[in-house]
Amino acid sequence: MVESNPVAGAVDALLRGVGQVMFQNNPLTGLLFVVGIFINSVRFGWAALLGVAVSTATAYALGVDRPLIRNGLFGFNGVLTGIALAFFLQLNGVLIAYIIVGAVASTVVMAALAHLLQVWDVPALTAPFVLVAWMMLFGVFVFAHLRPTPLIAPVTPDPTLTVVTQLREFPVGGGPVGATPANLAQALFRGVGEVMFQDNLWTGVVFLVAILVNSPISFVMALIGTILGGLTGLAVGADGVGIWHGLYGFNAVLTGIALGGMFVVLNWRSVPYMMVAVIFSTIVFAAISVWLAPIGMPALTAPFVLTTWLFLLARNNFRVLDPVRLDRITTPERHRAEFIRQPDIGPGAPGGEGRGL
Amino acid sequence: MVESNPVAGAVDALLRGVGQVMFQNNPLTGLLFVVGIFINSVRFGWAALLGVAVSTATAYALGVDRPLIRNGLFGFNGVLTGIALAFFLQLNGVLIAYIIVGAVASTVVMAALAHLLQVWDVPALTAPFVLVAWMMLFGVFVFAHLRPTPLIAPVTPDPTLTVVTQLREFPVGGGPVGATPANLAQALFRGVGEVMFQDNLWTGVVFLVAILVNSPISFVMALIGTILGGLTGLAVGADGVGIWHGLYGFNAVLTGIALGGMFVVLNWRSVPYMMVAVIFSTIVFAAISVWLAPIGMPALTAPFVLTTWLFLLARNNFRVLDPVRLDRITTPERHRAEFIRQPDIGPGAPGGEGRGL
Amino acid sequence: MVESNPVAGAVDALLRGVGQVMFQNNPLTGLLFVVGIFINSVRFGWAALLGVAVSTATAYALGVDRPLIRNGLFGFNGVLTGIALAFFLQLNGVLIAYIIVGAVASTVVMAALAHLLQVWDVPALTAPFVLVAWMMLFGVFVFAHLRPTPLIAPVTPDPTLTVVTQLREFPVGGGPVGATPANLAQALFRGVGEVMFQDNLWTGVVFLVAILVNSPISFVMALIGTILGGLTGLAVGADGVGIWHGLYGFNAVLTGIALGGMFVVLNWRSVPYMMVAVIFSTIVFAAISVWLAPIGMPALTAPFVLTTWLFLLARNNFRVLDPVRLDRITTPERHRAEFIRQPDIGPGAPGGEGRGL
Repeated sequence: MVESNPVAGAVDALLRGVGQVMFQNNPLTGLLFVVGIFINSVRFGWAALLGVAVSTATAYALGVDRPLIRNGLFGFNGVLTGIALAFFLQLNGVLIAYIIVGAVASTVVMAALAHLLQVWDVPALTAPFVLVAWMMLFGVFVFAHLRPTPLIAPVTPDPTLTVVTQLREFPVGGGPVGATPANLAQALFRGVGEVMFQDNLWTGVVFLVAILVNSPISFVMALIGTILGGLTGLAVGADGVGIWHGLYGFNAVLTGIALGGMFVVLNWRSVPYMMVAVIFSTIVFAAISVWLAPIGMPALTAPFVLTTWLFLLARNNFRVLDPVRLDRITTPERHRAEFIRQPDIGPGAPGGEGRGL
Repeated sequence: MVESNPVAGAVDALLRGVGQVMFQNNPLTGLLFVVGIFINSVRFGWAALLGVAVSTATAYALGVDRPLIRNGLFGFNGVLTGIALAFFLQLNGVLIAYIIVGAVASTVVMAALAHLLQVWDVPALTAPFVLVAWMMLFGVFVFAHLRPTPLIAPVTPDPTLTVVTQLREFPVGGGPVGATPANLAQALFRGVGEVMFQDNLWTGVVFLVAILVNSPISFVMALIGTILGGLTGLAVGADGVGIWHGLYGFNAVLTGIALGGMFVVLNWRSVPYMMVAVIFSTIVFAAISVWLAPIGMPALTAPFVLTTWLFLLARNNFRVLDPVRLDRITTPERHRAEFIRQPDIGPGAPGGEGRGL
Repeated sequence: MVESNPVAGAVDALLRGVGQVMFQNNPLTGLLFVVGIFINSVRFGWAALLGVAVSTATAYALGVDRPLIRNGLFGFNGVLTGIALAFFLQLNGVLIAYIIVGAVASTVVMAALAHLLQVWDVPALTAPFVLVAWMMLFGVFVFAHLRPTPLIAPVTPDPTLTVVTQLREFPVGGGPVGATPANLAQALFRGVGEVMFQDNLWTGVVFLVAILVNSPISFVMALIGTILGGLTGLAVGADGVGIWHGLYGFNAVLTGIALGGMFVVLNWRSVPYMMVAVIFSTIVFAAISVWLAPIGMPALTAPFVLTTWLFLLARNNFRVLDPVRLDRITTPERHRAEFIRQPDIGPGAPGGEGRGL
């Protein structure tokens, strides 16, 4: 049906585009992601749909290879750009035009980074989203017609400030405090939801189910990511409010999925490698957040992108790891099966017919 | 005469170096650019000449391929570095030595970035100037012998500040206010002049004539750039004083020329692509300006460089665009003519004898 | 003995790892570097040893090519990461775990950057250390369990501040003031010591002896670097306290060694090239320091890395320079001798058996 009916084909490509936010090339996963967003916020749901539609349509109009579009590779950065602009900026007519420009730009930057990184067979990940969203957010304090929400505001770093590490929902007053099972569950599930800016436990639950539908391995890696990210935050003594709301989880989730079987074959040697990457990405999250604090801007998924690029670029010098070529990317399960049958899906092997960028 | 007389040859190379600031490989264009600068400021005129002479001489001394030098490719970053340092720093003996070091460094960085970017057949643009000028300006607040002019000073971003969007010359008092024809003309022509830091309507007029002498297409693209840049500034509600003085124009002008027939063949599909790039570069100008505000540093032409790199890197994934190989760069007019005769001047075609970097 | 006895082999690799901080692939140099650090601080000595051990062991565990490990190429970034974290953070149990994570990450980032830069035959230098240390330091103001020492604190750049340029030990009171021989000697030797954060004249002396043991040319280049760096600081009017403590020397030392015969054959044309690079790296030190001042973070050796990358990338476009291929790196002395015998050790020549990354 997807191949014969153009409308079904378009819907399929758009849903895969949403699924690709977490590397899941599966329309059902994408549909559940959309449901998860709408559960938390109708406004962000529409922003996500506008983003994925405009960025995918731009790719068609500019003549991108059809299989790449069909696999949703020109949709996921549009999804995130749409939600991010709607999340940090107040709604008005200019914002809608701004989201459209951002979604168009996300497709251009995706094509640019894919071409740039082809030299090393490394994926663009969500870097197009990060770059476009930063460029479109940094200037808003000097734009009269695009006003920030209270979620972004400049802060001068202060080494003398006392950091309160106890898990809790609010900075002061209200709600239970400390590492209670309920608070830990909030941190865990919100960490998954925050991948798409959804600060909501139930959205996190739906996102996890959506991943499970496509890949049990990715589901486990997302869980490991959000747990290990939160624990790293607790270990270094990060702000307990931030951890509670999942801020120390979302980069860790993406890093866990990417290095847990997606771009490196899953085995007993790649798991500790993935875990170091998850811990490092969490530290990098704090670093980039502080770096951008004087201009009041968010780290977005830059910590995940930076960490995963480094851990993927390094893989060719590490004999214990088995890389997966970009044009053979499917699911962690199939990578394992194929690798056992024919252990040459790495960069040196002849061409496949997978995901492609 | 240029080939037989070494002095004429040197003057020709230097003038082409000035012309290359806006991609015009033409000594007459370069001469008119120099005239335009001197109209506004004798001091900046001498700084430009010092910059182009030192950077070009450095290229000779280090053994750069002669055709590249003759085409002015090792002059334009020196021009801009010279003017920028003279623009933001107070004149004294140390400054003159500092400009010489900067012009030498601009030639090294040009050679470095040209080599780096060769992998993707993407030009260095004015990135050598941006990098060298930033490195030489960032430190001046801690240098007793190089003092900043009042044009650079740290500002803490403030989301609560009201942005006044009306076009006007001064922040308070004096002069007509609003989108009057006179104010729009100021914004339009100053946008072109600001490419070389010349905040002067008549300099902008001379620069446009200088471009027209070499390429009517580039002339039209410069006009589209400055107009669309200013309109983008008005649309997002940028500060009207900045727009009046052409700050929302100069990156847009360069982006318009670069993508309007210079590195991509001009046709009805590349024009909207160029227009999106111009709009994006204008947003990026505000972004980089705010990013550097806490240390009081200027965006220079970094918004143009970043945007144009991304839109050029992407072109290989977009079937509707026809790229022009770097070694076949001449003028937008000849690119169109050659492409119609022989549509293979893109990255896959055999070697030409054009500009080269 | 090193080849037959595994313990001796490991010690040899670790000492070479320490030596490689200044490109000296020699265990005796490494041993003297360790002695120099312990002379100044037992704590930093242990941090250096922990760093080199963990980063080298990580490289073994991940299956890096043995010759690269034996040459110490997976040790020097661990050394610097260990010292840097111990230098800027207060000692506690979390810090020790943090240093271990940092040393592991430094090996991953080394493998990543080596692979990335292979395209241009350019070395990673100390970039892995800079990147890892920045990412692990930027966030510490928001980590309750890792507290900064008073050496890092946010400062807002202030163009109106008067810079006191006289050489002196303390900002106010105490000690002789001005360019006395004693003060100049302090600046000179501390500039060498600061390469490893050792603000100590005698450590600088020991480091110089350590370099001399392996390469007289590198010894001279280190001296030229620290002198020219300090003079550049004096010329632009930098803070005299900073110069006295060697802050304007350490990037210059590394740049001098790298471009003075190590990655470019030493001859009368490469010496002025190296000197321009040293001057530029000193200006870049001030630039990056000011850039990071609002978040209170140190420039580390980023000025050396940026400058040397640019001057190495450029070398292929400059006919007067003779590059040395990475896989043929040994000592400046042997590069000269080999180049005279067989002038094709540059990027085009067939494979050698040198250092390798």
